[in-house]
Amino acid sequence: MRPGLHTVTEGRGLLFGGDYNPEQWPEHVWAEDAALMRAAGVNLVTVGVFSWGRLEPSPGERDFAWLDRVLELMHGAGVAVDLATPTASPPPWLGHRWPETLPVDESGTTLWYGARNQWCPSSPVYRERSLAITTALAERYAGHPAVVMWHVGNEYGQVCHCDLSAAHFRRWLRARYRELDALNEAWGTTFWSQHYSDWDEILPPRTAPYIVNPSQRLDWARFCSDALLAQFTAERDVLRAHSPDKPITTNYMGFFKPVDYFAWAPEQDVISNDWYPDPADPRFPARAALTHDLMRSLAGGRPWMLMEQAAGAVNWRPHNLPKPPGQLRLESFQAVARGADGLCYFQWRQSAFGAERFHSAMLPLAGPDTAAHDEVRAHGRELHALSDVAGTTVRASVALLHDWHSWWAAEERARPSDRLSVTEQLTDYYHPLWQRGVTVDVARPSSELTPYRLVIAPQLFLLDEAGAAALTGFVRSGGVLVVGPFSGIADARGHLYTGRFPAPLREVLGVSGEAWRPADRAVHCSWRDETGFTPTSFTARDWTETLRADGAEVIATFDADGGPAVTRHEFGAGVAWYVGTLPSAAALSELTARFLADAGVAGVLPDLPEDVEAVARGDLLFLLNHGDGTVSVPFDGDAVDVLTGSPLRNGATLAPRGVAILRQHAGTGTAGPATR
Amino acid sequence: MRPGLHTVTEGRGLLFGGDYNPEQWPEHVWAEDAALMRAAGVNLVTVGVFSWGRLEPSPGERDFAWLDRVLELMHGAGVAVDLATPTASPPPWLGHRWPETLPVDESGTTLWYGARNQWCPSSPVYRERSLAITTALAERYAGHPAVVMWHVGNEYGQVCHCDLSAAHFRRWLRARYRELDALNEAWGTTFWSQHYSDWDEILPPRTAPYIVNPSQRLDWARFCSDALLAQFTAERDVLRAHSPDKPITTNYMGFFKPVDYFAWAPEQDVISNDWYPDPADPRFPARAALTHDLMRSLAGGRPWMLMEQAAGAVNWRPHNLPKPPGQLRLESFQAVARGADGLCYFQWRQSAFGAERFHSAMLPLAGPDTAAHDEVRAHGRELHALSDVAGTTVRASVALLHDWHSWWAAEERARPSDRLSVTEQLTDYYHPLWQRGVTVDVARPSSELTPYRLVIAPQLFLLDEAGAAALTGFVRSGGVLVVGPFSGIADARGHLYTGRFPAPLREVLGVSGEAWRPADRAVHCSWRDETGFTPTSFTARDWTETLRADGAEVIATFDADGGPAVTRHEFGAGVAWYVGTLPSAAALSELTARFLADAGVAGVLPDLPEDVEAVARGDLLFLLNHGDGTVSVPFDGDAVDVLTGSPLRNGATLAPRGVAILRQHAGTGTAGPATR
Amino acid sequence: MRPGLHTVTEGRGLLFGGDYNPEQWPEHVWAEDAALMRAAGVNLVTVGVFSWGRLEPSPGERDFAWLDRVLELMHGAGVAVDLATPTASPPPWLGHRWPETLPVDESGTTLWYGARNQWCPSSPVYRERSLAITTALAERYAGHPAVVMWHVGNEYGQVCHCDLSAAHFRRWLRARYRELDALNEAWGTTFWSQHYSDWDEILPPRTAPYIVNPSQRLDWARFCSDALLAQFTAERDVLRAHSPDKPITTNYMGFFKPVDYFAWAPEQDVISNDWYPDPADPRFPARAALTHDLMRSLAGGRPWMLMEQAAGAVNWRPHNLPKPPGQLRLESFQAVARGADGLCYFQWRQSAFGAERFHSAMLPLAGPDTAAHDEVRAHGRELHALSDVAGTTVRASVALLHDWHSWWAAEERARPSDRLSVTEQLTDYYHPLWQRGVTVDVARPSSELTPYRLVIAPQLFLLDEAGAAALTGFVRSGGVLVVGPFSGIADARGHLYTGRFPAPLREVLGVSGEAWRPADRAVHCSWRDETGFTPTSFTARDWTETLRADGAEVIATFDADGGPAVTRHEFGAGVAWYVGTLPSAAALSELTARFLADAGVAGVLPDLPEDVEAVARGDLLFLLNHGDGTVSVPFDGDAVDVLTGSPLRNGATLAPRGVAILRQHAGTGTAGPATR
Repeated sequence: MRPGLHTVTEGRGLLFGGDYNPEQWPEHVWAEDAALMRAAGVNLVTVGVFSWGRLEPSPGERDFAWLDRVLELMHGAGVAVDLATPTASPPPWLGHRWPETLPVDESGTTLWYGARNQWCPSSPVYRERSLAITTALAERYAGHPAVVMWHVGNEYGQVCHCDLSAAHFRRWLRARYRELDALNEAWGTTFWSQHYSDWDEILPPRTAPYIVNPSQRLDWARFCSDALLAQFTAERDVLRAHSPDKPITTNYMGFFKPVDYFAWAPEQDVISNDWYPDPADPRFPARAALTHDLMRSLAGGRPWMLMEQAAGAVNWRPHNLPKPPGQLRLESFQAVARGADGLCYFQWRQSAFGAERFHSAMLPLAGPDTAAHDEVRAHGRELHALSDVAGTTVRASVALLHDWHSWWAAEERARPSDRLSVTEQLTDYYHPLWQRGVTVDVARPSSELTPYRLVIAPQLFLLDEAGAAALTGFVRSGGVLVVGPFSGIADARGHLYTGRFPAPLREVLGVSGEAWRPADRAVHCSWRDETGFTPTSFTARDWTETLRADGAEVIATFDADGGPAVTRHEFGAGVAWYVGTLPSAAALSELTARFLADAGVAGVLPDLPEDVEAVARGDLLFLLNHGDGTVSVPFDGDAVDVLTGSPLRNGATLAPRGVAILRQHAGTGTAGPATR
Repeated sequence: MRPGLHTVTEGRGLLFGGDYNPEQWPEHVWAEDAALMRAAGVNLVTVGVFSWGRLEPSPGERDFAWLDRVLELMHGAGVAVDLATPTASPPPWLGHRWPETLPVDESGTTLWYGARNQWCPSSPVYRERSLAITTALAERYAGHPAVVMWHVGNEYGQVCHCDLSAAHFRRWLRARYRELDALNEAWGTTFWSQHYSDWDEILPPRTAPYIVNPSQRLDWARFCSDALLAQFTAERDVLRAHSPDKPITTNYMGFFKPVDYFAWAPEQDVISNDWYPDPADPRFPARAALTHDLMRSLAGGRPWMLMEQAAGAVNWRPHNLPKPPGQLRLESFQAVARGADGLCYFQWRQSAFGAERFHSAMLPLAGPDTAAHDEVRAHGRELHALSDVAGTTVRASVALLHDWHSWWAAEERARPSDRLSVTEQLTDYYHPLWQRGVTVDVARPSSELTPYRLVIAPQLFLLDEAGAAALTGFVRSGGVLVVGPFSGIADARGHLYTGRFPAPLREVLGVSGEAWRPADRAVHCSWRDETGFTPTSFTARDWTETLRADGAEVIATFDADGGPAVTRHEFGAGVAWYVGTLPSAAALSELTARFLADAGVAGVLPDLPEDVEAVARGDLLFLLNHGDGTVSVPFDGDAVDVLTGSPLRNGATLAPRGVAILRQHAGTGTAGPATR
Repeated sequence: MRPGLHTVTEGRGLLFGGDYNPEQWPEHVWAEDAALMRAAGVNLVTVGVFSWGRLEPSPGERDFAWLDRVLELMHGAGVAVDLATPTASPPPWLGHRWPETLPVDESGTTLWYGARNQWCPSSPVYRERSLAITTALAERYAGHPAVVMWHVGNEYGQVCHCDLSAAHFRRWLRARYRELDALNEAWGTTFWSQHYSDWDEILPPRTAPYIVNPSQRLDWARFCSDALLAQFTAERDVLRAHSPDKPITTNYMGFFKPVDYFAWAPEQDVISNDWYPDPADPRFPARAALTHDLMRSLAGGRPWMLMEQAAGAVNWRPHNLPKPPGQLRLESFQAVARGADGLCYFQWRQSAFGAERFHSAMLPLAGPDTAAHDEVRAHGRELHALSDVAGTTVRASVALLHDWHSWWAAEERARPSDRLSVTEQLTDYYHPLWQRGVTVDVARPSSELTPYRLVIAPQLFLLDEAGAAALTGFVRSGGVLVVGPFSGIADARGHLYTGRFPAPLREVLGVSGEAWRPADRAVHCSWRDETGFTPTSFTARDWTETLRADGAEVIATFDADGGPAVTRHEFGAGVAWYVGTLPSAAALSELTARFLADAGVAGVLPDLPEDVEAVARGDLLFLLNHGDGTVSVPFDGDAVDVLTGSPLRNGATLAPRGVAILRQHAGTGTAGPATR
């Protein structure tokens, strides 16, 4: 049994803190930091993420004394440390002495030092040097009482197209395919005369005169994720060998396309995420919830950790909107509600120099006597009052399917329409569930689906036979399945299935198609009379299909040709829906009500006001008002708001961006998903 | 006398088929292909375009056995074969072993294998290897009874800026200029201190700090077209040596800027084109007609071949709209009407993998029992009923002038306005002729112009003295000439003529200008009272000129300064018009009526409904309804619709996207261009 | 005492002419040029700017004979010559034989010959060769009577990232920092692990995986400007050694970001500028005025020279609008009004070839009998009538602060908002002064500020302690200071000051802030009641701040939080304003009236009509109508229009784009800035 996040939260409750980079400040500032952390209720800081150049100023030279003092200081202040391997940003000496460690983009351009991340995942020199500094850290601090967790690297995502990467890619391909013929078959190299006669001919997808082989690119995406994972596990193994009792994490970036977090998650002790929503995106609260649900799902339902978020504005968008007052607290509780046991920020103290000097922090450059820091301190106090939330879980009866391999394959160049977006379709289907207070897990087709009553696949372009069989079996056993357009189209190689689509799901869906017909204008559809939908017509966008019902009931038709647009198929003990277009949000919301009815699933509260999110975690019901106005949320019976201790009867009132966390009296069971 | 398209159509009638790539499929599928081809009326397939990697899996190794079986199968099924040299896409081994065969862009970036087209037109190794495989094919299949035509390469357009290309460019320049002084003079190297003191200093136009010498770029464009032509003719000569009795083609891409098809056409036995209109472009039917007219003109008025089109949607635009039902048939007949004797598609069977797996085909992945394939089969039957159209010709009394050298020169960087577009101006002037049922040839100034009554030069920026003399002589002899703005500005070197513009056409036009005045807002113009135009004013866009009538009649003036905007000059026995702006479509339509009246040319039918195209080919009159509504087309007398056999009197009714092909009774001569 | 522009204008009056490139034309054209120049009143031409390839056709070979003849011809025609070193555009032989002289961009792409400017400022070979040709020119023509001024290079701005540049950058950095520790400190290399352990590791900012260190980029910008200056001074020193009595210039490009003209100006004898306004920009007349004021300020208040402008349209924008009739004259007089003693054009005769063949010229390709040339000739005559303007000066009581280092630092990537633009903010504050006829100097914080009553710093992001002290002292001594947002934020290293902002100006402003809050929508603000502004509210855009008045009076507040938006602080004997947002033009105009009232400054005329610019130079008052309509400009008393000799009483009437230049009778003192 590996240590986990519980190892850290035990005795500490919810974790609150941030990245701490004392090497940017003279030592006299450190003591002020420690005092201000205590005042703000900080109990965890991540140290050392970008300290390689400080720890190893020149090759082989080591300077740990400053870090000794930092850890001592934190320990004395009662602040635990998540100690990072500093390998995300090698010092300039690495690229200067070993230029082959520098990454190269697909056009052959070298990416130099001067920023960060300038390392090739396939470089033996980088591997050797990164493990050497990791070993030195592990040897020195494995037993340090301040250190409670290890943090490997940072936001893995580097890609390199150099010759070393090419050689590594070939090794990876040999392990996958064994025989060159198998690779030629998988990549479809009879197309455009791309037959490989020797392993040495194979290259990463580099700049080419026209569209590069999509199967080559799919394997390249797989390789890149795996090559990074190998670097992670190599560092992790060094840490585990020296420090077996402390959990290890690396920080994710939500729905980050280059890295398959489903493959990574089992390799980590703690799932942690960095989350920087765009305040200009009207759907960001729902996206936040979906992303948090992904993290909880990656953590196997156990608590996870928000490793980085911004206390206010970020600095890397063209125009960086601040968070209005209350927003920091609202977003933090949203993560707690969805299973987070750690609420950390990048970073503790705002930098005065460097590329992120304009990024907000828990402690602004203007100092502690600021509205921004006041909010941080107040929120730290609130989190301490909630310490018994730590370790509790969130239950879901609905799963949304997402698969990185499908994502990679689906959004290749030269497809029917680039207006189909995997994450937009995910959000489209997530949004009406979120609005209804229905909690959702994120799974992939090979996940265990028996816990769920409703499984939704908004877009699973790539679906292998095993995945299709799992979905078919799920319905046969009584589950409700919803499949969105452009699903079940390609096999694991990225080859299109022949025959009517979606070939491996035709049986369970009872519908099949022969043509995608991207649409230029708004798509008009009609509900069939017997469905009872009102109004009887709806709009969709961008996408139509030529479908034929093969046993399914037609729920809606395309006005243009009268053919099926939405179908419902009773199959085995369950029901399978197919949606062959991109319905408007209103239409999808109405459809979602039918999906839920078929599955016998209800939200945690009926009739939620718009903009109010409701989630049950453990025995608490979180109500979160993402709107600008004051709203009333009715419920039956009595409850207590654990933040204020106030008793509530039959409802709660939420201020703009307000939060209520209810513990309900026995017998008033509104919290928790409804049962059939 | 070379063999031509007639060699292929004799005994076969109109050709119907597509690219056939059996190497992408297991052999058991081939038999199904043959049966389905027969059922669809396919009588020609293009085989082997991308088969180099299959034919020569490693350098020097040959595998023809599969191709033997394919040709045997096709022959047995009565399907003739257009056999391709596979040189458009070398196998990876070529670029791997001889990296100097890979093209390099203007910034020095290598374009790798992984897609297609990765070859440098100036590479000796590529030349040697491509001719070797071509020779092997020619030796083996010259006498094969299935093979009726040769297809060289595919869609020539590769450009390379490498050092081998630079050396080749220098050889080409030495042949053109002989003396370095002549090159310095032609390139105007006294500007910006670009004097070349040694041939070895000369380079392709590579990435530079600022605007590159436009004369250098003009010669580079000429060289690139010639370098590709040299590759084509080298392969062609191998084929001719082994197979003198079979015609040879390569497929064009319409108004494709990099390659001067006027220079290429005489080198080919058959003119063939690939045509992929954009359904989102409202003017695409007119553009199609213009492009087909270009092909017929390149073929010297003889039949040509549509080598590639899409049965439905393509896959390489961001959002790929499908063709509505009936559109495939409509577009095919449009090509027949304008002289096509071959109607082929890319491709027979949709690919399951590779970069074009989402490109539609005659046989979709969903199989033969689909609406898409039904349309293909039905159209195949219809074409067979029209087999006696093959070999007939289309007459035109109007020529539209287009010149690749002028196109290259006109659209250089740093010109008065990049809102002037050669192909848009061509389409502007073509459109009202097309709407009136006036058939047009596309010619260049050095073409034989005596067959025409009306010659229109929408924009001939580059016009040498001989070209100007030809136009002048045409008018002197009684022709009607129309010249659009920015014509007659530069000589063959790209140097601007000095003096009032358009210098070499001033005499024939009787008008001259001193300044171009690009306009920010809509341009307002007025017809002179005596012209009788109503309304008396019109709008134009983007472009005005400061003109002075030197003998010409002023037809319209710019409201801003009262100066001439449109003039008409009676010169010799003819008339020369000048249009110094970009009139609205309505104004240009009215002007076109005057041009036609001056020339005594009328369309094949008067008063055509909007969206109906009318063309006479041989003794048939094609009526094509490009609109979404049903329309009536009146004509005088009796006719028979050869598609249905129905007699028609005084008119035809066309369904949306409907087609009628009329053979008229003697004495009711509406078909064919009117005579004076 | 160095020679200056007066050396050239003495006996010649205002200079009128342009670039003359006879090497582009056969010699018989030269005589026509000379005659037409005389007819047009041309008295100065710049010769040889791009003549290196003509002067040194191959390495070491020299051909001066043609230039001898050109200078002789000009001398004979009474046209003085500004003789250029031809070093802006090396001949192809330089890059061919010494490829290391070619510049390389940040991605490593070489920029080749074929255009111009292809030289690396750090190349020893380029330095050697450029000084050799400069020396040869200087030796030959130092005493030539036609040569009255030297022109070094052209529009300096080349940047190179090659290894030679890297080595040069390191030398520059060693001189700046002495110790590597000091560099590490200044660049904040503890951020993202960028510690340099050896000077040799340091590179220019090249393409990197993410945001490059902003302090490194700031020093790189400084280095690039300095490296170019070193090339300029090296050529200048050669010229001075041989030709000590003739002034030396190089032509600027207005607010051109890569080069710090404040650092350059003291190295030159004559300040000259190239000015190509964009006719599509509605604020271009004000931008022109601001740019001219910058040039006069760089010249220390002495006359300067408009070295290049277009007689009509340029050719390098996508759509090049012409100048309407009268515009050439209007723009020329605008420059004279603001201190220009030279009014020159690129170029005398329009090129027939090369990348600028479509750029207008004093003599169009259409010849002298054109409206365009008529305007040139008429304007030449007018300028001669104004010859006694030469040498007179323009007084200003207001200074606008601008600093290149701050500009470089402020617009780095990854900042609060890229909607803040230094030059837009400068123009915002300049515009209402320009509309009121208030003349402005452009200064930097280290300039002598005592001549001014009002100093405005629209955006001084980077402000060192000395600069802040100067501004504070200015107010303490009775000056009025206005500071716009995002000022006083960073020190000279680009590090942000800690504590409330703007740290070094908090005392003088009596206000401090803790957060920038970029705004998504229009910002609504209210004037405090006691200020008497009507209407009482106004809008601003994009930017708000969380401010606290620390002694200042609050003038306006943000509606969103009620906090200060505009403040006014009486400090010492003066007043300091702070504006924490980007007010609308109307609001800023109202504020400007208050700034002027505080400073006791008034425009040269009250109640100027919109679009009319009024400037006093010497004893003349220039009235310039930038509008399309006829306007009346009232003034008190009698005056004479020196252009027409007409007496005027109590006002002048200006035609569209009309100009009046008034000499007023004694006792009617409207001209000149008002006094307290």
